[in-house]
Amino acid sequence: MSTPQAAPRTIVIGGVAAGMSAATRLRRLDEDREIVVLERGEHVSFANCGLPYHVGGVIEDREALLLQTPASLGARFRLDVRTGHDVVAIDRDARTVTARLRSGEEVELGYDSLVIATGASPIRPALPGAERAHVLRDVADVDRIVAAVAAGPRTAAIVGAGFIGVELAENLALRGLDVTVVELADQVLPPLDVEMAALVRARLEENGVTVRTGAAATSVTETTLVLDDGSSVPADLLVMAVGVSPESRLARAAGLETGERGAVVVDEQQRTSDPAIFAVGDVAVKRDAIGGGDAFVPLAQTANRHGRLVADAITGRPVRSQPVLGTAIVGVFGLTAASTGWSERRARAAGRDVRVIHTHPSDHAGYYPGARPMALKLVVDAATDEILGAQGVGEAGVDKRIDIVATAIRGGLHASDLADLELAYAPQFGSAKDPVNMLGMIAENLASGLTRSVQWHELDAALAAGATLVDVRTPAEHERESIPGAVNIPLDELRERHGEIGEGPVVVHCAVGQRGHSAARLLAQLGHDDVRNLDGGVRTWSTATR
Amino acid sequence: MSTPQAAPRTIVIGGVAAGMSAATRLRRLDEDREIVVLERGEHVSFANCGLPYHVGGVIEDREALLLQTPASLGARFRLDVRTGHDVVAIDRDARTVTARLRSGEEVELGYDSLVIATGASPIRPALPGAERAHVLRDVADVDRIVAAVAAGPRTAAIVGAGFIGVELAENLALRGLDVTVVELADQVLPPLDVEMAALVRARLEENGVTVRTGAAATSVTETTLVLDDGSSVPADLLVMAVGVSPESRLARAAGLETGERGAVVVDEQQRTSDPAIFAVGDVAVKRDAIGGGDAFVPLAQTANRHGRLVADAITGRPVRSQPVLGTAIVGVFGLTAASTGWSERRARAAGRDVRVIHTHPSDHAGYYPGARPMALKLVVDAATDEILGAQGVGEAGVDKRIDIVATAIRGGLHASDLADLELAYAPQFGSAKDPVNMLGMIAENLASGLTRSVQWHELDAALAAGATLVDVRTPAEHERESIPGAVNIPLDELRERHGEIGEGPVVVHCAVGQRGHSAARLLAQLGHDDVRNLDGGVRTWSTATR
Repeated sequence: MSTPQAAPRTIVIGGVAAGMSAATRLRRLDEDREIVVLERGEHVSFANCGLPYHVGGVIEDREALLLQTPASLGARFRLDVRTGHDVVAIDRDARTVTARLRSGEEVELGYDSLVIATGASPIRPALPGAERAHVLRDVADVDRIVAAVAAGPRTAAIVGAGFIGVELAENLALRGLDVTVVELADQVLPPLDVEMAALVRARLEENGVTVRTGAAATSVTETTLVLDDGSSVPADLLVMAVGVSPESRLARAAGLETGERGAVVVDEQQRTSDPAIFAVGDVAVKRDAIGGGDAFVPLAQTANRHGRLVADAITGRPVRSQPVLGTAIVGVFGLTAASTGWSERRARAAGRDVRVIHTHPSDHAGYYPGARPMALKLVVDAATDEILGAQGVGEAGVDKRIDIVATAIRGGLHASDLADLELAYAPQFGSAKDPVNMLGMIAENLASGLTRSVQWHELDAALAAGATLVDVRTPAEHERESIPGAVNIPLDELRERHGEIGEGPVVVHCAVGQRGHSAARLLAQLGHDDVRNLDGGVRTWSTATR
Repeated sequence: MSTPQAAPRTIVIGGVAAGMSAATRLRRLDEDREIVVLERGEHVSFANCGLPYHVGGVIEDREALLLQTPASLGARFRLDVRTGHDVVAIDRDARTVTARLRSGEEVELGYDSLVIATGASPIRPALPGAERAHVLRDVADVDRIVAAVAAGPRTAAIVGAGFIGVELAENLALRGLDVTVVELADQVLPPLDVEMAALVRARLEENGVTVRTGAAATSVTETTLVLDDGSSVPADLLVMAVGVSPESRLARAAGLETGERGAVVVDEQQRTSDPAIFAVGDVAVKRDAIGGGDAFVPLAQTANRHGRLVADAITGRPVRSQPVLGTAIVGVFGLTAASTGWSERRARAAGRDVRVIHTHPSDHAGYYPGARPMALKLVVDAATDEILGAQGVGEAGVDKRIDIVATAIRGGLHASDLADLELAYAPQFGSAKDPVNMLGMIAENLASGLTRSVQWHELDAALAAGATLVDVRTPAEHERESIPGAVNIPLDELRERHGEIGEGPVVVHCAVGQRGHSAARLLAQLGHDDVRNLDGGVRTWSTATR
């Protein structure tokens, strides 16, 4: 029963990222309010994003994952945190919630405002025999996987090659298991474009992980996972990591409006269709920063941010949640892959006229020891020069470049503006023309019509239409690896030898695109009126077509 | 004599960063133009910023510093690059320059457009005996220093603790020399504020470098440097690194307008007061991005950028150079120090009402191995929430955070907007609330009046005015190091014990400011009407007052 309250009471359902950010901020804003956090599980405020690394032993100490306890939160923030409280119903008219305790007993609590922060739960494909499959969402899950690993399996199969799947692949391999990753899509890490994801796939394979893309799991035996082509992969241990869906059952049952993938619809103050009920974190619909539509983006950064923001909204502070880019990152055997905004695939699917730039810069000046290459990609709206997204894969400096582009997007900078960003340069940290500056310079060259490019997936059509392909690298480079049909005229000889090319359209290429740009400019000025540079050079082409 | 030209001729004076960027871009834009680069020294397009690291052997191979040669630039870009050509006069009426060759012979060359990219030269203080002092500007200088080190000196003194001085200190120490750095200012790295620079000073000293600040050199003996307090420091090897001044003698002699520190005045197309003459790089005046006034900012990034831009301007492309933030970075014995925009000192000197934020975050999530602390500072215009500048010092992740803030400034984001940046988060790369997000959250708390802070240099005045200082850390932390006069009431006991504080203003503090914020909010809500949180906590205070 709801009893009359001296102070308003806010109930938060879910005590991890979004929920606990909301509760602690709410206390800092309002000392008098009664704040109750109801958490179904045993733990609150744990380090979700660290869970895969405890599986691998990278984070050795399980306690390191447990950032707060109900007691510590009670002492510091006077929060009434109740674990083992599974909220089973919301009565919007009475403004009460009913929670079921582990004993089976049910308690009813009244609220003045309610925050639903129930998160998202792993999708469990309904395969015959899949009951033995693990998922990874919380501390109890990780405990089960750690126990299963301790039992000495030799092989592991992971269904799903998204961020969690790839992290688990690395961590199970670190435990000595023979790991296979099975992915329905034609690539790993579907938020990335295929030619970028190919670098991650290669890194997984170099480290002994078997990758099966374009493959669907159909059933599970005691020791294997059976695929749709009839083959089976060894799976002493089996983990499902095919994605998550918003845990909005409770909200739906209460008649709250839901939208994108079943997530709870909220306004810019995270308020649901019931003005006394808010939703934050993975359970709530986000607005997409690029397209403006609804989005489902289950990421910790946004959960924390919106959790904090809902406390402001509840106490009447003027706040507006920002649309999300979905900036994400993953480490895989020393390689980093990150993205922000839209992929090329997504932008094309949305009907945008897309300008794409691939570069292969080093993380810092080549003349300073230890420079490591990365692949960097920028997706631009060709009509407006608006930055739609960026992706990076490499061993160092990728996180920095993606964060810079994410910040530029938020600041409303256009692709060409990246040329002018004034980034910190000393030779161990970057280049006088930083990789992000280079993206901007290329964007400006394309936007102004100074140069034109052709993408790796457009090359065949260009050649079929009669274009001559000229490799402007050195003969030694040409000999090592070349694109079928390319004639080799090194850039430094092109002024003298361009007559060899003849009439008609020309595609030039080099290793990464830089010499190709000089060659394209030269040929255009020497009278070749249809010259394009292969974007990203042989390096992008060969990764993409491997 | 100038002879009639079939194609227009552009002469570039100076063949390093700005000049060579201009020349190569100009060729890509205009294949027909005659492009002549006149370089006084022996080398073009060398890696300035790498020079200190060749002294220390970090960059072992001297050839790695030589990025291009006249021959390679001729072959690729059809540039007429002439080293050993010291331009001694510009005849603006005749549109000619006169260059003196090493033989003493003089040649005169006509131009249609002229680019002055003569850079900046090290200031040589006129001390008695200082003729034996080295400076570090070009490859010849580094050769001389390397030869001097090979002769086996035991000690080195460096006059000037700016970026070059500090880099040289590390590199000479790496060569086994006993190094002293002498700086006129009260701190190392004058672009940083004193409490941030103190961390760099400590790192230098921990690595055996002697640092003498507030000290002026008065004369030089054969083995020592004599200071104004009568002491002398050992100086078998002596290097002057007290800054640079624009090498604008030639421009001034030609009657071109000069301004800030003698740099050549240019418009947004880098055009000087003579429309046929452009100036770029360190020799040219910049516009300050924060204050809008003229600035002298001798940095490679801007030199390269403006060099490229001047080629566009010369060929009539619509370009405008951007004002500069002066983003800079240095590595010192594993520590990184970086800054962008204005320091607190500079902002206060300019009369701005300044809001300052110090934080001490980790580069990545504390629960993932290897997290390292940094000090991060944001300088904000209190009236407008405009970001004026940022500084960071730490072992990892500093470059990324400063680049993000530099990008945010360029994008016109306000300090509070940093809270909403969506940065790539996985535990090895950052935190769900990234250090930059934290700066934004604190900025918003201050801007909205939710909380108030006091700076380390304001604490004494606050206490003298009767404020009670409350340390809300644990007793163990309080015992280890505390601020004189502080009473210890741990945050988790503050609700019950706040009555001990009594009437009047209160300053709370913790280790870094986070618990202090919760404490300040709590006390304010419990009826204490003048509560401030010591910004940056004990950590900033103790670094600053050490």
